[in-house]
Amino acid sequence: MGAAMARHLLSGGFELCISTRSPEKAQGLLAAGATWAGTPALVAEQSDFVFSMVGFPSDVEEVLLGQNGALHGASRGAVLIDMTTSKPSLAISLAEAAALQGVHVLDAPVSGGDIGARSASLSIMVGGPAEVVAAVAPCFSLMGSTVVRQGDHGAGQHTKMVNQILIASTMVAMSEGLLYAARAGLNLESVLSSVSPGAAGSWAISNLAPRVLADNFQPGFFVDHFVKDLSIALEEAKTMELVLPGLTQAAQLYEALQAQGRGLDGTQALIFALADLSGLSWPPSVA
Amino acid sequence: MGAAMARHLLSGGFELCISTRSPEKAQGLLAAGATWAGTPALVAEQSDFVFSMVGFPSDVEEVLLGQNGALHGASRGAVLIDMTTSKPSLAISLAEAAALQGVHVLDAPVSGGDIGARSASLSIMVGGPAEVVAAVAPCFSLMGSTVVRQGDHGAGQHTKMVNQILIASTMVAMSEGLLYAARAGLNLESVLSSVSPGAAGSWAISNLAPRVLADNFQPGFFVDHFVKDLSIALEEAKTMELVLPGLTQAAQLYEALQAQGRGLDGTQALIFALADLSGLSWPPSVA
Repeated sequence: MGAAMARHLLSGGFELCISTRSPEKAQGLLAAGATWAGTPALVAEQSDFVFSMVGFPSDVEEVLLGQNGALHGASRGAVLIDMTTSKPSLAISLAEAAALQGVHVLDAPVSGGDIGARSASLSIMVGGPAEVVAAVAPCFSLMGSTVVRQGDHGAGQHTKMVNQILIASTMVAMSEGLLYAARAGLNLESVLSSVSPGAAGSWAISNLAPRVLADNFQPGFFVDHFVKDLSIALEEAKTMELVLPGLTQAAQLYEALQAQGRGLDGTQALIFALADLSGLSWPPSVA
Repeated sequence: MGAAMARHLLSGGFELCISTRSPEKAQGLLAAGATWAGTPALVAEQSDFVFSMVGFPSDVEEVLLGQNGALHGASRGAVLIDMTTSKPSLAISLAEAAALQGVHVLDAPVSGGDIGARSASLSIMVGGPAEVVAAVAPCFSLMGSTVVRQGDHGAGQHTKMVNQILIASTMVAMSEGLLYAARAGLNLESVLSSVSPGAAGSWAISNLAPRVLADNFQPGFFVDHFVKDLSIALEEAKTMELVLPGLTQAAQLYEALQAQGRGLDGTQALIFALADLSGLSWPPSVA
């Protein structure tokens, strides 16, 4: 996703300096006019805005706060914008660490996946001071079609957690609905035509259920990444003394799916974990 | 809903004879030109097509098979169309009982609620022989905008169960997402603007979440009716040896809500049951 998003900045007229942990991922951007720096710190030395998009919260810490991290190279007044889905509490501590050097931080996770990144139709959920968000807005609007400042540091990450909580139980709904339909011997395309337009409709039903019917379990979004996101959401919920049984159950089903070796499948593969609970394969035999 | 649907048949040029268990509900239709019959059997004596829409499966049995039920008055070749959300197995046994008299039966539950009934935009999910569905199609198209034959007897009811299974966990998703957002101190309108257009989006998020934010828990669809539907879905799942943990959990949360005296609220009231699990009210204090 990062490459596609960076390309929009380049096309939009910004000078772009990049650093990637896997150098081969940089080739396309370098060919398109970006320059290379060996570390995030070296990127930061020559940049006003530094965007990061990595994997886990520990990667965010390394890339921003580590020995070669962006904060070490950042000048007073620079802005570090972390677009990784990560912990709200980390967004706050990053901002505090950076403030000691007069550096600004925004948390700006996205939803919309590979397709949204390529078509610049991401939803970008931003946390941080309004004037810093305004300064970076021209960049955000090159990458996303829905850009909303959600509040102060961490509010972008919290909003992304809401997004993932919504997806989690909606995916359980979709998987159970399809499983019931198949087990009852219904024609799944016909069922979708009846249920999609109404109160049972969702983005998942419109976009992922047809992939399940086409036996396409390629990742729009990896199970492994979703498990990471849900574990952050559960941890935050616990901190807030919030009991979320749907999220808990969905996270467990996705962990079961991961345990079954499907971590690199797309989230729509959840139907395998649900079928497995009843000792069935997908598609199941008709009852 | 039945009154609004019947009115479309009348406006569409059909002669309409009605029987209602609560006579006052008939007044509007009688004023508009319908005629009255004292019992479903008397309706059936003068009708080619007999539509029923009542509450529970036991009501369906009474209205169709009981002493004064429609089957007792129906002529050979008549069609009984049950639009109640009811058991797939009952749809099959009704069809078998009617076939002994040369009477046809269709199961044709709907989704879309009061609004869909009034605006003739219901989704009608039909089970029964294709030629019988074709004969009744002119009536269905006056009442709904999506009319799909899903298969033989019971397939309409099974499809409606899929619809309710999808709604059940999607409502859990919505309630938990809103609860998390409020507890994290986010602005809920802003959160909805970020999450609604993307992969977390659903009919519920677009239509019911704004009602929660407006403190509107009036029923589009009653909790009591939803509990009935989910209990039918669970019973059918058990018959098919299908384990559906999301549905099970959602049904229990809705039963808790009912136990809290909210059976006549709309389904969006689920957020109270979820807040209650954490000892919180809605909206909750910020953590």
